[in-house]
Amino acid sequence: MDDLDKLYDQLLELLNNNRIKELKDELNELNSFDQAEFFELLPDEKKLLVFRLLTKDNAAEAFSYMDSDLQEHIIKSISDNEIRNIVDEMYIDDTVDFLSELPANLVTRVLKNADESKRKLINQFLNYPDNSAGSIMTIEFVQFHEDMTVKRAMEQLRATGVDKETIYNCYVVNSKRVLMGIIPLRTLILAKDDEIVKNLMEDRVISVSTLDDQEEIAEIFKDYNFISLPVVDKEGRLVGIITVDDIMDVIDQENTEDFEKMAALLPSEDEYLKTSVFTLTKNRILWLMVLMISGTISASIISKYQYVLTSVLALSAYMTILTGTGGNSGSQASTLIIRGMALGEIEMRDIIKVLWKEVRVGILCGAMLGFVNFARLFIFDDVSLAVNLTVSITMAVVVVVAKAIGCTLPMLAKRLGFDPAIMAGPLITTVVDAISLLIYFNIARLLLL
Amino acid sequence: MDDLDKLYDQLLELLNNNRIKELKDELNELNSFDQAEFFELLPDEKKLLVFRLLTKDNAAEAFSYMDSDLQEHIIKSISDNEIRNIVDEMYIDDTVDFLSELPANLVTRVLKNADESKRKLINQFLNYPDNSAGSIMTIEFVQFHEDMTVKRAMEQLRATGVDKETIYNCYVVNSKRVLMGIIPLRTLILAKDDEIVKNLMEDRVISVSTLDDQEEIAEIFKDYNFISLPVVDKEGRLVGIITVDDIMDVIDQENTEDFEKMAALLPSEDEYLKTSVFTLTKNRILWLMVLMISGTISASIISKYQYVLTSVLALSAYMTILTGTGGNSGSQASTLIIRGMALGEIEMRDIIKVLWKEVRVGILCGAMLGFVNFARLFIFDDVSLAVNLTVSITMAVVVVVAKAIGCTLPMLAKRLGFDPAIMAGPLITTVVDAISLLIYFNIARLLLL
Repeated sequence: MDDLDKLYDQLLELLNNNRIKELKDELNELNSFDQAEFFELLPDEKKLLVFRLLTKDNAAEAFSYMDSDLQEHIIKSISDNEIRNIVDEMYIDDTVDFLSELPANLVTRVLKNADESKRKLINQFLNYPDNSAGSIMTIEFVQFHEDMTVKRAMEQLRATGVDKETIYNCYVVNSKRVLMGIIPLRTLILAKDDEIVKNLMEDRVISVSTLDDQEEIAEIFKDYNFISLPVVDKEGRLVGIITVDDIMDVIDQENTEDFEKMAALLPSEDEYLKTSVFTLTKNRILWLMVLMISGTISASIISKYQYVLTSVLALSAYMTILTGTGGNSGSQASTLIIRGMALGEIEMRDIIKVLWKEVRVGILCGAMLGFVNFARLFIFDDVSLAVNLTVSITMAVVVVVAKAIGCTLPMLAKRLGFDPAIMAGPLITTVVDAISLLIYFNIARLLLL
Repeated sequence: MDDLDKLYDQLLELLNNNRIKELKDELNELNSFDQAEFFELLPDEKKLLVFRLLTKDNAAEAFSYMDSDLQEHIIKSISDNEIRNIVDEMYIDDTVDFLSELPANLVTRVLKNADESKRKLINQFLNYPDNSAGSIMTIEFVQFHEDMTVKRAMEQLRATGVDKETIYNCYVVNSKRVLMGIIPLRTLILAKDDEIVKNLMEDRVISVSTLDDQEEIAEIFKDYNFISLPVVDKEGRLVGIITVDDIMDVIDQENTEDFEKMAALLPSEDEYLKTSVFTLTKNRILWLMVLMISGTISASIISKYQYVLTSVLALSAYMTILTGTGGNSGSQASTLIIRGMALGEIEMRDIIKVLWKEVRVGILCGAMLGFVNFARLFIFDDVSLAVNLTVSITMAVVVVVAKAIGCTLPMLAKRLGFDPAIMAGPLITTVVDAISLLIYFNIARLLLL
């Protein structure tokens, strides 16, 4: 990618030396994504000038790759006529993405400049629920009537294919526009001219409906290695397609959501740097509050067993290390289970197998940690053997219990219809904290009092 | 997908009633992924029988979708001749995936049954480093000589295209097999017969080299919305292509790795249920040990300030709730920053902006948590106002400090060349534990002693 940096430098030099004609030629040679990236390097006052150097096609495509701030900046500065050109050329799914990030007054201006049918369509798309198939599909697909010959199909493809987002899977419909089959372009070009599309198509079609959730759709793409997937309405009529490039964004988005849930955050689709302090606070405070109040249980356990701490003062020093180790052990287990369930590798029916595995792992880890802790206290800390044993045995037991809890809670959450991702580090830690302290004080009572 | 379950039931019924001919017809109609899934429903003793009902093409393709246990079961049971058919038909990247999961003795048997040139190729692929472009590429691509006409190119495509993994991007090379350009199939079918490929191709080609890391390659796919990407050797010669379906697996794999690192686990590519207790323990114990030993710092802080706890006994009850809230606050911040950096949304240069944001979020969250904590202690707990103030003020301060640490450490880790993902929940919690206790005891000294 270093070549690209060099190229950008050359383009900037052309711009600074006012060699606009050369800049225009070079710029229009670039890939749309690289064109969009180039704008990030430009000072604000030059962006409009450079944008106007792009040809009509390039302008629309580069525009769809730009981030929302830059899109807004450009829309604010260009004429109604230029807006019309962009909206005309852009694929419908990109237009909808772009509009959903734009302030309302600019959305109105853009819609005013789209022609009647496009405007209707955009409004319809904006009404699909977030994360539904409808919200990520595109309508620029190739469809053939089932009775066409290959020759006619190819003619139609040559005539209309340029404007389609993908032509590599073509869709076959009947007179009622009901989806009947799929014909990959590779089948079409390998077929004889006079064959009938109906006889060549794959008629066991996997399709989704406009309201299906994008996460399930991503699973279908991953399972079947598709590059596009048809979307049908309630009557089975073909209304759009979803392409694999949008699915890669979905996969990232769904993973981000899991990362957020697992860190006790309300999920958000906005970029961190573009999210206000107020929104960030709002996404965090609920779980912090819930966890703090649950933490009260630990506090009351400590209060109740205060007499143990009072009689053996040294014990208080090891509370944090025990709850910490327990929390970490539990988080490790819960993370693996949550991830395994998200990838479909672990099912509810595996719960006994998982629990038995975790107990054994817990015994191994617990024994090692307990032993090292014992050695450390023996050598470095000035505590009695009985205190040392209390702490080290607690350590071993806590690890086993934490592993068991860490693997069980996510599966229980799922069984109860919750997202297992909430049963990750923070909640597991809070639960394990309380249980660790109970174990600690009871072992102490047994060995020391 | 309920239709599929019904279909599977029908197939099982055909099998149980020994209506093998019908089963064969129905089964071969299915999508390869669905065929592979069907085997999961079969008792072991029926698998071989059903596998032999698949046509040669279907057998190889369904085989490449099966999970490694099933592949192993089948390879063990079939004849050398059948193995040869599968290896012949399978794409090279799928063959390599499959071999890398197989026990050594079976790998030898498979290689013995591949022809000389295929065997050489497989060995070469098995030597590419894990996670490199070489290890995920395929060699079944379409290449044209730069001087060909469109007509000849289309003829060649029709003659050889059937066996290629994708024909939708064709690659143009010179006489030395150096990659000169890309010509999408859509360009080709829209072009006139007598045009020269060289004049139609896109000559600014983005390519990767065999040793490039798969994570960077996934970024390129996401940025440019590619469906395939060429791989070249040191001399710029085209040696393979990577297709988008493999990239979706890479994205999942890289995300899993981040989840694991962020939960203080050594990353592993194996499925949880297939990983031995010993390996699971090995992947966990290192970090647990490191974190436990770091936890010693907390223990010695508590020892050092033991006199504070002794003089105001009630303080010990709130240690866990304070370190817990601190840990959760810090983990939230670090997760957002780590994820933002992984998605390229946050750069090193944003550190001051990020820190300032987190401090403000910390002040808002800290103030609310401190206030609620104050009210709770005031109403429910039997503690003096001074103790209440000590705990509540500490709570507020700890949240601010934890947010600041949580956002700074991942960025520092990156600056120092480490993966920021290690600076997640567990490590942040351990650091914040120690600092929270220091703050707690010093505020206590100030207000209570």
